[in-house]
Amino acid sequence: MAHFPEIPKIAYEGPKSKNPLAFKHYNPDELIEGKSMRDHMRFGAAYWHVMRNSLSDPFGGGTAVMPWDDYSDSVDNAKKRADVFFEFLEKIDIDYYCFHDRDIAPELNDFNKSTEALNAVVDHLGGLQKATGKKLLWGTACLFSHPRYSQGAGTSPDARVFAYGCAQVKAAMDATHKLGGEGYTFWGGREGYATLLNTDMKRELDHLAALMHMAVDYAKKIGYTGQFYIEPKPREPSTHQYDSDSAACLNFLREYGLLDHFKLNIETNHATLAGHTMEHELTVAMAANALGSIDANQGDTLLGWDTDQFPSDLYGTSKVMLKVLEMGGFTTGGLNFDAKRRRESHEPIDLFYAHIGGMDAFARGLKVAAAVRADGRIGDMLKKRYATWDTDLGAKIEAGKASFDELTEWVKSQPEPVLASGRQELLENILNELL
Amino acid sequence: MAHFPEIPKIAYEGPKSKNPLAFKHYNPDELIEGKSMRDHMRFGAAYWHVMRNSLSDPFGGGTAVMPWDDYSDSVDNAKKRADVFFEFLEKIDIDYYCFHDRDIAPELNDFNKSTEALNAVVDHLGGLQKATGKKLLWGTACLFSHPRYSQGAGTSPDARVFAYGCAQVKAAMDATHKLGGEGYTFWGGREGYATLLNTDMKRELDHLAALMHMAVDYAKKIGYTGQFYIEPKPREPSTHQYDSDSAACLNFLREYGLLDHFKLNIETNHATLAGHTMEHELTVAMAANALGSIDANQGDTLLGWDTDQFPSDLYGTSKVMLKVLEMGGFTTGGLNFDAKRRRESHEPIDLFYAHIGGMDAFARGLKVAAAVRADGRIGDMLKKRYATWDTDLGAKIEAGKASFDELTEWVKSQPEPVLASGRQELLENILNELL
Amino acid sequence: MAHFPEIPKIAYEGPKSKNPLAFKHYNPDELIEGKSMRDHMRFGAAYWHVMRNSLSDPFGGGTAVMPWDDYSDSVDNAKKRADVFFEFLEKIDIDYYCFHDRDIAPELNDFNKSTEALNAVVDHLGGLQKATGKKLLWGTACLFSHPRYSQGAGTSPDARVFAYGCAQVKAAMDATHKLGGEGYTFWGGREGYATLLNTDMKRELDHLAALMHMAVDYAKKIGYTGQFYIEPKPREPSTHQYDSDSAACLNFLREYGLLDHFKLNIETNHATLAGHTMEHELTVAMAANALGSIDANQGDTLLGWDTDQFPSDLYGTSKVMLKVLEMGGFTTGGLNFDAKRRRESHEPIDLFYAHIGGMDAFARGLKVAAAVRADGRIGDMLKKRYATWDTDLGAKIEAGKASFDELTEWVKSQPEPVLASGRQELLENILNELL
Amino acid sequence: MAHFPEIPKIAYEGPKSKNPLAFKHYNPDELIEGKSMRDHMRFGAAYWHVMRNSLSDPFGGGTAVMPWDDYSDSVDNAKKRADVFFEFLEKIDIDYYCFHDRDIAPELNDFNKSTEALNAVVDHLGGLQKATGKKLLWGTACLFSHPRYSQGAGTSPDARVFAYGCAQVKAAMDATHKLGGEGYTFWGGREGYATLLNTDMKRELDHLAALMHMAVDYAKKIGYTGQFYIEPKPREPSTHQYDSDSAACLNFLREYGLLDHFKLNIETNHATLAGHTMEHELTVAMAANALGSIDANQGDTLLGWDTDQFPSDLYGTSKVMLKVLEMGGFTTGGLNFDAKRRRESHEPIDLFYAHIGGMDAFARGLKVAAAVRADGRIGDMLKKRYATWDTDLGAKIEAGKASFDELTEWVKSQPEPVLASGRQELLENILNELL
Ligand SMILES: [Co+2]
Ligand SMILES: [Co+2]
Ligand SMILES: [Co+2]
Ligand SMILES: [Co+2]
Ligand SMILES: [Co+2]
Ligand SMILES: [Co+2]
Ligand SMILES: [Co+2]
Ligand SMILES: [Co+2]
Repeated sequence: MAHFPEIPKIAYEGPKSKNPLAFKHYNPDELIEGKSMRDHMRFGAAYWHVMRNSLSDPFGGGTAVMPWDDYSDSVDNAKKRADVFFEFLEKIDIDYYCFHDRDIAPELNDFNKSTEALNAVVDHLGGLQKATGKKLLWGTACLFSHPRYSQGAGTSPDARVFAYGCAQVKAAMDATHKLGGEGYTFWGGREGYATLLNTDMKRELDHLAALMHMAVDYAKKIGYTGQFYIEPKPREPSTHQYDSDSAACLNFLREYGLLDHFKLNIETNHATLAGHTMEHELTVAMAANALGSIDANQGDTLLGWDTDQFPSDLYGTSKVMLKVLEMGGFTTGGLNFDAKRRRESHEPIDLFYAHIGGMDAFARGLKVAAAVRADGRIGDMLKKRYATWDTDLGAKIEAGKASFDELTEWVKSQPEPVLASGRQELLENILNELL
Repeated sequence: MAHFPEIPKIAYEGPKSKNPLAFKHYNPDELIEGKSMRDHMRFGAAYWHVMRNSLSDPFGGGTAVMPWDDYSDSVDNAKKRADVFFEFLEKIDIDYYCFHDRDIAPELNDFNKSTEALNAVVDHLGGLQKATGKKLLWGTACLFSHPRYSQGAGTSPDARVFAYGCAQVKAAMDATHKLGGEGYTFWGGREGYATLLNTDMKRELDHLAALMHMAVDYAKKIGYTGQFYIEPKPREPSTHQYDSDSAACLNFLREYGLLDHFKLNIETNHATLAGHTMEHELTVAMAANALGSIDANQGDTLLGWDTDQFPSDLYGTSKVMLKVLEMGGFTTGGLNFDAKRRRESHEPIDLFYAHIGGMDAFARGLKVAAAVRADGRIGDMLKKRYATWDTDLGAKIEAGKASFDELTEWVKSQPEPVLASGRQELLENILNELL
Repeated sequence: MAHFPEIPKIAYEGPKSKNPLAFKHYNPDELIEGKSMRDHMRFGAAYWHVMRNSLSDPFGGGTAVMPWDDYSDSVDNAKKRADVFFEFLEKIDIDYYCFHDRDIAPELNDFNKSTEALNAVVDHLGGLQKATGKKLLWGTACLFSHPRYSQGAGTSPDARVFAYGCAQVKAAMDATHKLGGEGYTFWGGREGYATLLNTDMKRELDHLAALMHMAVDYAKKIGYTGQFYIEPKPREPSTHQYDSDSAACLNFLREYGLLDHFKLNIETNHATLAGHTMEHELTVAMAANALGSIDANQGDTLLGWDTDQFPSDLYGTSKVMLKVLEMGGFTTGGLNFDAKRRRESHEPIDLFYAHIGGMDAFARGLKVAAAVRADGRIGDMLKKRYATWDTDLGAKIEAGKASFDELTEWVKSQPEPVLASGRQELLENILNELL
Repeated sequence: MAHFPEIPKIAYEGPKSKNPLAFKHYNPDELIEGKSMRDHMRFGAAYWHVMRNSLSDPFGGGTAVMPWDDYSDSVDNAKKRADVFFEFLEKIDIDYYCFHDRDIAPELNDFNKSTEALNAVVDHLGGLQKATGKKLLWGTACLFSHPRYSQGAGTSPDARVFAYGCAQVKAAMDATHKLGGEGYTFWGGREGYATLLNTDMKRELDHLAALMHMAVDYAKKIGYTGQFYIEPKPREPSTHQYDSDSAACLNFLREYGLLDHFKLNIETNHATLAGHTMEHELTVAMAANALGSIDANQGDTLLGWDTDQFPSDLYGTSKVMLKVLEMGGFTTGGLNFDAKRRRESHEPIDLFYAHIGGMDAFARGLKVAAAVRADGRIGDMLKKRYATWDTDLGAKIEAGKASFDELTEWVKSQPEPVLASGRQELLENILNELL
């Protein structure tokens, strides 16, 4: 039963503790801006990384020690993994989890058998949820690992593969619905292309939109009211991913009339791979009222691929939490650790060190974000920077009542405007002060 | 009068010529797919690079030898430059040109004086156009060089600067209209931000949209019917540019109800800086019926900034011309050489070598593109790849009449689909064959 | 016996052929600069990519169709693969091959058994070589895939793993020697580190040098006279690879007194990942008389990892062949296709399309390089650019006989020097002319 | 006299202070590991950024407000700038400075006049040094801004330009010597190339080495005993810089017999542009006993060029200071702020905010580094990770007494080694604990 026999339930011990198996900052019931840390964070664990990531990479096989796993495709093995995972959730004190259908149950190269296996494991997970109170943040279908999807699923050149993908999404939506999942995510694994020489981009995007409209219709039909998400990512695994960043996703959603039905699930490492900061991507989504959930991790900007490292950079976590507070907090979303240990950190205990580090990093980020807001200097400087927009001139422009002729007359009558400093360095000093 | 005394009018001499001052492939009146090369290309020269680029860089001053320029801010000097430029256009046999207001006329740190100078030079340019038959592809306002715009123009935190920018756009639109410009371009020079700590992104984007709506209104008012363009670019000069790529621009245009009024002017080096290929950006724009014009150049993908090199890569020019042919050719747009010589190529004759190289590279690209289309193999393979979408199954999905339930039933009744190879390597071999 | 029944022996049919299974430029016995193409190229095929690459990636399993493989770790399966590989070599008309020990024979998680299996397969390969005349370009040991090497081999923090690596190199050198391998390569798979927090760089590099000195000693002992190579690569798989580029390798070899014993095996995609062009890396190696062999492939500079694509870019192959001609040709080295088909090109015939494309691209590159040399314009411009160095002033400096005092006197007596244009655009035009 | 009338002398006020014009962590006389912060840091200010950087960029002119500067090339203006600079040094409490010859004195396009002007300003600086006690960390010659150097100085294709460069270095060395400079730096501004089509790399590197040997000889002749440095940097301004990173510099120094005479001056933003971390570059230099001095700044890894931002990232400063402590501190070197304010931070007071932020960031970095060393956990884990190297097996290998045969026998007799976790996440948690 105890698959992590040496690991106690991780508890808050405060910043002075030297216990590597304790939280130093994440204190679930501590109130920040009147809400508990637990409710601010809504931490989720990723089934794929915790239970199914062998830590292989393109140059070598798996290193992860997983004594509970017999590496078979049996439903029994899948259920045993689920038991281990819930022990992990309990010990690490994380309330939510996320999965792909093929993480929790085997791909059996036969649609009927795979779906049957999925349903069996879903029942088992339902029992574990009930027993522990853990909840499903979101579910998704893995439409990118199997060779049939090597050229896309919703954007496959093969209509039969597209149909297969739809059937798989339906089953994953059923599973998510049954488990009370608060969201359902589309990550466009292979929705993109390798070369335009063999690709009809417009036709593929039309198909992708058709799939998403069917998902919206199906949710309505079965009474699933969870939130749909798209997760942007560039370059990987397809050289050219359609959903490359927040703007690309929003453009797609607007073009195909889907913006009312979808929000974004934004991942830090995907943002930086797209050449943006995470806070840029969050802000773009928020401006469209479309920030839904967050995949919490971090990348290595000196590397050109998705390293999915555990979030440890306090600048990063602080900036994320500033945005989350600015938004008024998550509703259906949360902070899902889409993060893996380094390949060299192959022992089970490293799973705990890694998650503890990520949770503490976000707890400190939350404290910093709240401190920035309480301190007020940064916010005041931002407000003051736009002060001219609160004058008559600015108000008229903002009201859409100005014209080029009129503004030209105004300019002719005025001296050259003198711009104030942007004060980036001072703002960074203040942020460091509060870190 | 002859500022390039050693340079003859550049003529077509065919592929065997060793004359460095001759075209080896650009034969203006040669028909390709029934249209002259001249009409396919609609080449444009960039006033800023030809006449105003001193070839300075962040580590050193200008090197360009420009004996005709007295480096003063006088209108006379500006007119003399215009004369030299038109001599250049005639000798290089380019029919179109593009300018920023501050390229053709001096910025005098006083709105009225700057506008007066602009108008004087515009009259002079009108005379030169009439005398030579050269035409204006598009005009634009430089809203990024002057310190007043250091924090943006349409997205300035200062409403007075915004107004100034509007007045400058009005004057530049007037100039473009007077010169019969076929388009008017917005490149978001400093429309972006350096740090979110001092930036209200949503408010700034609202302002930018307001400016563009005023431009649309003003065009209507003055009867200007040329095409508006937005030119996407990431990172430079603002760390975070709002118009970072085609998708970001389209998203903005859709959100603010501007998509009917704007097309995109896409530049190769901006595409690659955004992490996309040029043909990706063109295809994204075409899928939205929004490809307007092209800034022809190329970057160095080992460098992280806009090198604006002259286009010499035949793969690049072939892929661009394939897209242009696929679109049915330019209407208002063209191939504007937004390209500069390397800083070490500082002699006037290098301007000719550089443009000859770019024009020949595009002429070969056009021939390759036409050969690919005539050959048919690549097109056939692409069509065949989507064959299942032309069956009943595919047609039903494309018609929006399929559902998850129905597709699931279909999948259950079928064997596993077997995917055909994508054949990228063979396609690349065929392209090489035709190069 | 015929594992590629539909594939004939690939033959030269000339540039007009439309046969996708024919060479259009690679004509093995055609003489270029007095030497046959075959001898210029010394093409090699990579056992790992042709026979062992399932085309999996971090987001999905293998797609490659390999009907001859039973996916067992048996020696019989290994021998059968060898038979298929030699059929491939014969049909594609490639004379050389390269291998890692663990490509040709199974890793059996037991040193003695693995070595025994290796020896058995080596005997089988020896027979195949004798029967076909094919030769081994170089061998190597795979010191990066197995979990034991996850933290390095020659730079492992664990001395036992280091010893294991040495034993494996010894066995791989024995195999290479037995098969008449003309070279032996070290690619520092995991020789690097993930974080300096747990790494003693100096100590690790001392160990790596110790391993290489033992290899030199062992070669002497067994009478192996083949060439040792180091293959530079940055970032992958270790975040920080010690042998990141040519300069880093040369620095290491100089520091540890190994420069007489090693040359470099340079790969195009590794060069670009390091931020250099391939021709830069080749030139750096040649300046140290240390260019040994080439891993022929190409990357996608918009992606941040080693895509190992088949070389198709004619600019790239031309520039490589220019350097090879400049060096006077390969001695022990050759052009080894360290290249894989895209994951979507999963059919056996794609192996042929891919290699045909690569061989033709290099054949054209060789023709272009020879044409550049015959044409002479580029070489003349280069020579003329350094003309002042052939004057008395230049000669004195080059002879090491000048001093600051003397040169200052000279400068004081002279007018400001006027620099000639670097003519980059004209040079690129000439190169395009000859392509 | 008081050019910064509103700025007091910046004083330490402790972490609770909200005064933006106070140090919160840099307390010059506070002892850390028994040495004052002042002596640990040896902060330097960069004359070029503080006094001569107009904050122009490739897309716009200068924005910096510098009321003291008449923008003339007069020696009087140069002297006045020096006065302002020393007022700055006093108020910001920085002890050292660095300069290029052309920062402190005008380039007059005539060697004799420029040198005369330089000497006049040097005398003035000598007086200011005496009056204030400020010292010169290092001097250097600007061999990259003037058009004559557009194709290199020490690697110019023109021997006359090379000679000019030597004469300029001589004068800059004289100036440095006269001012008691503790070092003299070579940054290879344009020592590299744009295209290999016109470049003889080997010949150029031979020339560069000749220049450096002349510098060594000249130092000996005049009795200058300061330390020579090379500062590595990739890509900018030459596309291919010869001194691209620490390893490239060390390789060059070893090849040309210069390693005894030179150390490296390593800049954070140059390290990251080269694809390395700063701590990697420092460690590489330290392993060769060649770490001399540091240019303190930071880059934006989402941008592809040298942004030279002020260092604010506490992870970065902590890792740098860990290395500096590990080395035993600076001897001739120091922390020179080769950093500029953002273009939007154009007011004089921003110079103070920026330097205060950088100094406080390094002060915190020093405290964190000392805490990591005092805590001991990270160091202990590192030591323990290499424990097997302290056994007989490891010792024998390290002594150079092992052979492949012997190690193979050992391996055959042992079970498979089992590797311990690298514990990267735990190490990062501990670092965060101590931040
Ligand atoms: Co994710
Ligand atoms: Co990810
Ligand atoms: Co452009
Ligand atoms: Co550009
Ligand atoms: Co390789
Ligand atoms: Co590779
Ligand atoms: Co520096
Ligand atoms: Co720098």
